[in-house]
Amino acid sequence: MNEAAKTLDGWYVLHDFRKIDWSSWKAVPQNERDGMIEEFTALLNQWNDTETNGKGSHALYSIVGQKADLMIMLLRPTMEELNEIELALDKSGLADYTLPTYSYVSVVELSNYLAKESDEDPYENPYVRSRLYPELPKWKHVCFYPMDKRREGNDNWYMLPMEERKDLMRSHGMIGRSYAGKVKQIISGSVGFDDWEWGVTLFSDDVLQFKKLVYEMRFDEVSARYGEFGSFYVGNLLEKEALSKYFQL
Amino acid sequence: MNEAAKTLDGWYVLHDFRKIDWSSWKAVPQNERDGMIEEFTALLNQWNDTETNGKGSHALYSIVGQKADLMIMLLRPTMEELNEIELALDKSGLADYTLPTYSYVSVVELSNYLAKESDEDPYENPYVRSRLYPELPKWKHVCFYPMDKRREGNDNWYMLPMEERKDLMRSHGMIGRSYAGKVKQIISGSVGFDDWEWGVTLFSDDVLQFKKLVYEMRFDEVSARYGEFGSFYVGNLLEKEALSKYFQL
Amino acid sequence: MNEAAKTLDGWYVLHDFRKIDWSSWKAVPQNERDGMIEEFTALLNQWNDTETNGKGSHALYSIVGQKADLMIMLLRPTMEELNEIELALDKSGLADYTLPTYSYVSVVELSNYLAKESDEDPYENPYVRSRLYPELPKWKHVCFYPMDKRREGNDNWYMLPMEERKDLMRSHGMIGRSYAGKVKQIISGSVGFDDWEWGVTLFSDDVLQFKKLVYEMRFDEVSARYGEFGSFYVGNLLEKEALSKYFQL
Amino acid sequence: MNEAAKTLDGWYVLHDFRKIDWSSWKAVPQNERDGMIEEFTALLNQWNDTETNGKGSHALYSIVGQKADLMIMLLRPTMEELNEIELALDKSGLADYTLPTYSYVSVVELSNYLAKESDEDPYENPYVRSRLYPELPKWKHVCFYPMDKRREGNDNWYMLPMEERKDLMRSHGMIGRSYAGKVKQIISGSVGFDDWEWGVTLFSDDVLQFKKLVYEMRFDEVSARYGEFGSFYVGNLLEKEALSKYFQL
Amino acid sequence: MNEAAKTLDGWYVLHDFRKIDWSSWKAVPQNERDGMIEEFTALLNQWNDTETNGKGSHALYSIVGQKADLMIMLLRPTMEELNEIELALDKSGLADYTLPTYSYVSVVELSNYLAKESDEDPYENPYVRSRLYPELPKWKHVCFYPMDKRREGNDNWYMLPMEERKDLMRSHGMIGRSYAGKVKQIISGSVGFDDWEWGVTLFSDDVLQFKKLVYEMRFDEVSARYGEFGSFYVGNLLEKEALSKYFQL
Repeated sequence: MNEAAKTLDGWYVLHDFRKIDWSSWKAVPQNERDGMIEEFTALLNQWNDTETNGKGSHALYSIVGQKADLMIMLLRPTMEELNEIELALDKSGLADYTLPTYSYVSVVELSNYLAKESDEDPYENPYVRSRLYPELPKWKHVCFYPMDKRREGNDNWYMLPMEERKDLMRSHGMIGRSYAGKVKQIISGSVGFDDWEWGVTLFSDDVLQFKKLVYEMRFDEVSARYGEFGSFYVGNLLEKEALSKYFQL
Repeated sequence: MNEAAKTLDGWYVLHDFRKIDWSSWKAVPQNERDGMIEEFTALLNQWNDTETNGKGSHALYSIVGQKADLMIMLLRPTMEELNEIELALDKSGLADYTLPTYSYVSVVELSNYLAKESDEDPYENPYVRSRLYPELPKWKHVCFYPMDKRREGNDNWYMLPMEERKDLMRSHGMIGRSYAGKVKQIISGSVGFDDWEWGVTLFSDDVLQFKKLVYEMRFDEVSARYGEFGSFYVGNLLEKEALSKYFQL
Repeated sequence: MNEAAKTLDGWYVLHDFRKIDWSSWKAVPQNERDGMIEEFTALLNQWNDTETNGKGSHALYSIVGQKADLMIMLLRPTMEELNEIELALDKSGLADYTLPTYSYVSVVELSNYLAKESDEDPYENPYVRSRLYPELPKWKHVCFYPMDKRREGNDNWYMLPMEERKDLMRSHGMIGRSYAGKVKQIISGSVGFDDWEWGVTLFSDDVLQFKKLVYEMRFDEVSARYGEFGSFYVGNLLEKEALSKYFQL
Repeated sequence: MNEAAKTLDGWYVLHDFRKIDWSSWKAVPQNERDGMIEEFTALLNQWNDTETNGKGSHALYSIVGQKADLMIMLLRPTMEELNEIELALDKSGLADYTLPTYSYVSVVELSNYLAKESDEDPYENPYVRSRLYPELPKWKHVCFYPMDKRREGNDNWYMLPMEERKDLMRSHGMIGRSYAGKVKQIISGSVGFDDWEWGVTLFSDDVLQFKKLVYEMRFDEVSARYGEFGSFYVGNLLEKEALSKYFQL
Repeated sequence: MNEAAKTLDGWYVLHDFRKIDWSSWKAVPQNERDGMIEEFTALLNQWNDTETNGKGSHALYSIVGQKADLMIMLLRPTMEELNEIELALDKSGLADYTLPTYSYVSVVELSNYLAKESDEDPYENPYVRSRLYPELPKWKHVCFYPMDKRREGNDNWYMLPMEERKDLMRSHGMIGRSYAGKVKQIISGSVGFDDWEWGVTLFSDDVLQFKKLVYEMRFDEVSARYGEFGSFYVGNLLEKEALSKYFQL
């Protein structure tokens, strides 16, 4: 039996992608549209209030291309809270003018491939906590994609000995670290929760850094031989204050 | 000709996943909505009555993410009963406000890879019976996914000799057993019934145990080399008493 | 050039799977619904009349799960007749309340892998004729799935010498024969007609026999190394007399 | 750099597959339906007029099964003409009662694998011209499927030396030729135009010949090791004169 | 760690494919239709104005076949501008009569596989600039497809040493150059932005050149062993002046 990597797990995450049904939206009188934007803004404020108490975080981005118009990313301490927010969102007026196009359920994860031996409870370590329970940055761009480690013929990650996986992850991590300050990365695990094994969410003020980072990593053995990637979503920050203009006809 | 594993087969299973068409639901007057919730609750009560007589079991969960809103899991002694319940459900008022998103047809299964030789009729053994005809637990979370054993190049489960499969399954089963008390697992076979070979349904009061269990197993050779996985669904228990609130606008 | 197996070809086959649009059906007044059931029953009677003259056969089953509600299986001497029946069905009132979900076009086929050398014209042999132009049994359950022989790397059926294919098919056929009386099997070829190479239709009074048969075969090299399988459909016999009740609200 | 086969290219081809929305069609008053059939017949006549001048050809078939009801196959000297016809078709009344289900864009192609060296301009050779600019036969049945040459591991067509490809194609072509008179075959190339590399359109008065031809070829190394196939469509000739009856309710 | 190729990155690109909902369009009174065409033309003029100032480029083509009717290709200096244009387009009247069918997000890219060592800042080189910030040609035909470099077993581009990749790309580039003047090619990178790694957009006055170029390349090792291709779209130039006629009923 091969040794599994241990993980630290933080907040649960829902990525919710939706398209706007502009055609129906245009048929709504302005005052009703205003009311729905207000209701949605109130929801966002409510989320903010909860989050002020250190109980999660959220982000709202406008996605480029036809795969989606909006991405709502929600972090909460429990799966039940994600479900409640999803339900409240579905019941809101604005939701009637959106079409779900993709979602992803996961939990913020730190793998221990790179961890040092220690007696300390990692869940008490402030740095670890800041990464397991992160406040999402208000950076200009977002990039999301789900991924698997490959299990095919001679390229089977899960059959590699722990030591080899550690070595490979160390070199992989070095690429990530070279983007520190330029790209903020949140890895969330989804084994048992959704169709891929991990979700990767990147934030940056320079959208080109996503391409540079992901492309550079692709030549690293961890991605080159062992990475399988799902759909990529890229978008621009959508501030609460810009919602009215975004939905204005 | 390679020797097939023998299986014990219990109740037939239907997993029925649906999304709610909230937009249409909102257009229904409250008294009609109340009527449909009542009708659906009556259906659930009817299922309970049948089940009290030891003729099956059911579970209702709220799924997180856009893949589905509701999962109804139904166990019955015959395929005809599943079909009748499905038909009654489709004819109910609430069904008009739901959209089918996935379903799975299978039969509760115990494989004999780990069974000891015995003269006893296993179908008379109370422990075996409790697993073939299980009462579904009312645990807080559910996880469902379908799976295949791989048949690709050198990784072909069905070409392995019986003894090797037995050894591999023994080690695999040990992981499962280490979660006893934390995760309840129901394996149902679907060869000849649906598109994958097995459905796996997990129950737990701690949703994180799903991730730990499935991830740990992934490093075991049975999954690492021979497992192919379909979509994963995760959800929270939806009690009959909470239905009104769930559907309330 | 590798030698192709010869086949004997019988009646053309259409498998037609449909879901019922219950939501629209409920909006139809009872007398109109009754009229559509009568019209559909008249179609079935018309098919019966043709079939009484030895010009084909048909079966109607209720499918379990969301993939379909109804499966109509039609056998006719020509492709044109299948097309005409399909057209008549589409023009019927009931069809407006159904949604096509899958179909399969093929021709009943006997492969000569197992045939003995003979001077006789096989198309004159009564046993062969009974299999090429079969009357579909009114057994309680049906199972349908399409399949291919694999052509991948070292597992390429079509590159195997004829003798090896014969040996493999002989062992494979023995499993099928051990289910004689319990499962009736109709193989129809679809190379050049539809997306898979064969359709397999199984009938049984005990639905569990489908699982036992298909699972046992999966360990046989023909399936283990060379079988690729499409979607599986399982259902229960729907007698003409039960149609009113089936569609009753 | 491996040597590419040279090709001769003739008329551009559009295969257009559509389903009929019978449910909506039934809601149209007879005189309007008659008008739309007339308009469509006028379009067909217009195509015929163009084609009388040697500027293309077309065929209309009724497809069996749910993948499509109609297949319109159009050959024209330029891509612009195909586009114009497509536009005219979309703007016609009948089109509102059809749903596009598949299309294929290609150009009639002769590969030079089997060509003899010659000083002659092949585009002046009458036999070559009759194949590059073919008049589609009014044979009873049609079969269409798209295909690729495989590029996988050791089965990579595009890495084979020219001589080996020539030898393989020669043996492959012999199968095709043995069906001369029974099956007419049009190969059209779609590299750079559509998702597969070639479209194959077969015509025959005996639908079973499609199955025999394609099945026999599958054992030939070109198909067995190097062929990848898309969806197969099979249908019956739909004469202009039969349109009224086809659409009659 | 394998060395990644460096890239030069220019304008951001959105390919937006849409089908026209002719059935709904026909239900609109002529004056309203005229108004929507005018509004769309005004949008195009606005894009032209921006582009006159060297701030991007756009192209409009009519796609052949059912995959799409229109392709709008937009180049802009920032991802935000693409998003704004997309939003303006969605809010326009004509958009209500179109259905999104595919889109692609990327950035114009020059790889340095073929670059010579130099002290010069390539972003200051006029030739490089003309390729990173290209004015799209008004050529008669367009061809678009997305692609990946393969990472499978022994055919893993990302595991090849830099020198080998350079040699392979040199031979590949020679094919492209032999089409100079006949085909204009724009490569845009989409790693981190969309589901494939590159988008390829070809322009030509002779549509057959697309087939010749792509087919010839397929025999080159870079494509033969390492190329994975998505859907191909081919179309004809749609001039602003031809829009009225295109949409006229």
